[in-house]
Amino acid sequence: MEYRFAHQFDHMQASAIREILKFTSDPEVISFAAGNPASEGIPVDTIRQISAKLLQEDPIACLQYSVSEGYTPLRQSIREKMLSREEIVHDFDDLIIMSGAQQGNMLASKVLCNPGDTLVVESPSFIGSLNAFKANGVNLTGIPLQEDGMDLNALEDLLKTTPNVKLIYVIPNFQNPTGLTMSLEKRKGLYELACKYDTMILEDNPYGDLRFAGENVPSIKSMDTEGRVIYSGTFSKVLSPGMRVGFLVAPKPVISKIVICKQVDDVHTNILAQRICHEFLMGTDYLAHIQKLAEICRHKCSLMLEEMDKHLDPAITWTKPEGGLFIWATLPDGVDMADYCTRAVREYKVAVVPGTAFLTDESQTTQAFRLNYSTPSDEDIVKGIQLLGKLKL
Amino acid sequence: MEYRFAHQFDHMQASAIREILKFTSDPEVISFAAGNPASEGIPVDTIRQISAKLLQEDPIACLQYSVSEGYTPLRQSIREKMLSREEIVHDFDDLIIMSGAQQGNMLASKVLCNPGDTLVVESPSFIGSLNAFKANGVNLTGIPLQEDGMDLNALEDLLKTTPNVKLIYVIPNFQNPTGLTMSLEKRKGLYELACKYDTMILEDNPYGDLRFAGENVPSIKSMDTEGRVIYSGTFSKVLSPGMRVGFLVAPKPVISKIVICKQVDDVHTNILAQRICHEFLMGTDYLAHIQKLAEICRHKCSLMLEEMDKHLDPAITWTKPEGGLFIWATLPDGVDMADYCTRAVREYKVAVVPGTAFLTDESQTTQAFRLNYSTPSDEDIVKGIQLLGKLKL
Repeated sequence: MEYRFAHQFDHMQASAIREILKFTSDPEVISFAAGNPASEGIPVDTIRQISAKLLQEDPIACLQYSVSEGYTPLRQSIREKMLSREEIVHDFDDLIIMSGAQQGNMLASKVLCNPGDTLVVESPSFIGSLNAFKANGVNLTGIPLQEDGMDLNALEDLLKTTPNVKLIYVIPNFQNPTGLTMSLEKRKGLYELACKYDTMILEDNPYGDLRFAGENVPSIKSMDTEGRVIYSGTFSKVLSPGMRVGFLVAPKPVISKIVICKQVDDVHTNILAQRICHEFLMGTDYLAHIQKLAEICRHKCSLMLEEMDKHLDPAITWTKPEGGLFIWATLPDGVDMADYCTRAVREYKVAVVPGTAFLTDESQTTQAFRLNYSTPSDEDIVKGIQLLGKLKL
Repeated sequence: MEYRFAHQFDHMQASAIREILKFTSDPEVISFAAGNPASEGIPVDTIRQISAKLLQEDPIACLQYSVSEGYTPLRQSIREKMLSREEIVHDFDDLIIMSGAQQGNMLASKVLCNPGDTLVVESPSFIGSLNAFKANGVNLTGIPLQEDGMDLNALEDLLKTTPNVKLIYVIPNFQNPTGLTMSLEKRKGLYELACKYDTMILEDNPYGDLRFAGENVPSIKSMDTEGRVIYSGTFSKVLSPGMRVGFLVAPKPVISKIVICKQVDDVHTNILAQRICHEFLMGTDYLAHIQKLAEICRHKCSLMLEEMDKHLDPAITWTKPEGGLFIWATLPDGVDMADYCTRAVREYKVAVVPGTAFLTDESQTTQAFRLNYSTPSDEDIVKGIQLLGKLKL
């Protein structure tokens, strides 16, 4: 039988990452291809104790239906414990719980964009978000990412000439895939352009609490006097990704549409997981916890960078992240990047993600690939980079 | 600031159900407005023990990222334990895990329907699904539901004249909101029409395991020789709705598109919840469990029907379900149904759901309202129906 699918899925396929990840099921492969937080940072004992307590003391409330907006005490504790260091939630804003930041980014774009509307992203950007936007049928336009953030001149040129730019999607802290951080100046400039051209910003901040170097840069949401910024956060990188708990902060009219959309998407987020997040925030020292996580990331990032300095061809360059999970390495011109990544996994059993996966259109080209340091062990970081160093350019 | 939303959300509002449910936060209100499974049927002790064991023995796997298709052993145990009584999963089919049947119905319609394509539903039908389809921008068309299922003559008239009918959505067992069950003859007829007019069927079966009277009727999926049926199932009514674990069975080409859609919607379903479902299926006698749940439903349904016979005006008629959670009551012509439901909750503090909530367009009219018997206690069923009986028509 011939199946007819909605147009936006005609050309969507399992991504290049998934092809590489197939190799990583081979236990001999050292994977730098993941996006997982360090497993040693997941507070397993605390989660076990909280879960047991909740299922003992209030089991029915943890297992019955709940409300689409999310568990009310968690909505409050996120404000008090995770978002208290700067003004993220303004008087005109509300905060709702999402099934991970993925759902937040998906639904924010879904309520704002009609098929064919333009959504601007950094190029390169996080593949999961790019595919979510594509699945909503939007016209994705990539603006080159510079060392200090999106090229604002190129952005303004686009905004001047393109109608219906509904949303500009950015990951200002330790961006996925590049590890780069947007400067304060660019954050201000981006917000001004959004005001000038009457568009909105989706600020995705999954890694912001994993800073291990440099100074904190204020979020774009903290500058949001006009109600133009949707802020997307998550517990995936600071507690547990498998629980699928994230949140959105946005102006109330936007949140009320997203609640409708959330209700029809999955009714509500797993309520036991929401309550575990709440108990975790209220019962532990959150700042001490994220300092510990940042220290794990700092150590592993330093180790990987040191090994790269020692073993990789000096013609290869790479970013030096101040936090997060990723390093972005660029091969010299003339080297076939896709072939390099394929040979890495086939011949040396080291998996990295080819940079094309992060472009708005996988037919574009890049010389870069992504390395993750949070998932592998110290031993595998050393061994894997040494193996990569043996790979001829 | 003026926000511009995607067109399909311009007219979408929080539903009439939500307005009624606001009253149910008043502890004095007896609610027949919910859709919850009976809390006394949730195996709290078993879930607590399984959860503790999993977080003790394999915590990282229960808390890290997992795969979009769902936990592989669960995909197998659903086939072996929940779906073994008839042939649901054909050789050409695959089974994937969803975050509740809500996500399954949402994504099945999303991958198959372009905005403007027609999706046919029973009228009345489940509001959560109707809103999901609307959020995808489809053209919803309701076909009257008769005692034994959808009016197939009206359906064929529509199929003859309407291009791009991509999907026919039905809840054949103990339908929400009516409690009615589609006859075997109509199931066969519906499948034949889908073949004749080259369209697909989305068979939603959340209540099928809660039969307490009559004979089992084979599913439409069991007749699916051509690969035209998507079958949607869930743990919400047989284990715990708060865990948000459901599944879809569909032909492999359809599943592979839905996996892409699932990946961008929420990456994967909460993995601890998936593993709890798996351990539950493997470690308990599933058939004995659902017999116990059906017995709870039988008892409460009988009690409510007896009280309705005793206390309600004889001009009111209602369905006699053979399973599931709902009774559908119809007021005589000339009575203002919306006013009746409003007076019920305001004057007598008994909440029911006005039937307009379940129509494809809430501006249509119906004389009916929905009653749920699984959520209230026996005492509240008796007291609430007595109170409804005092309400003047």
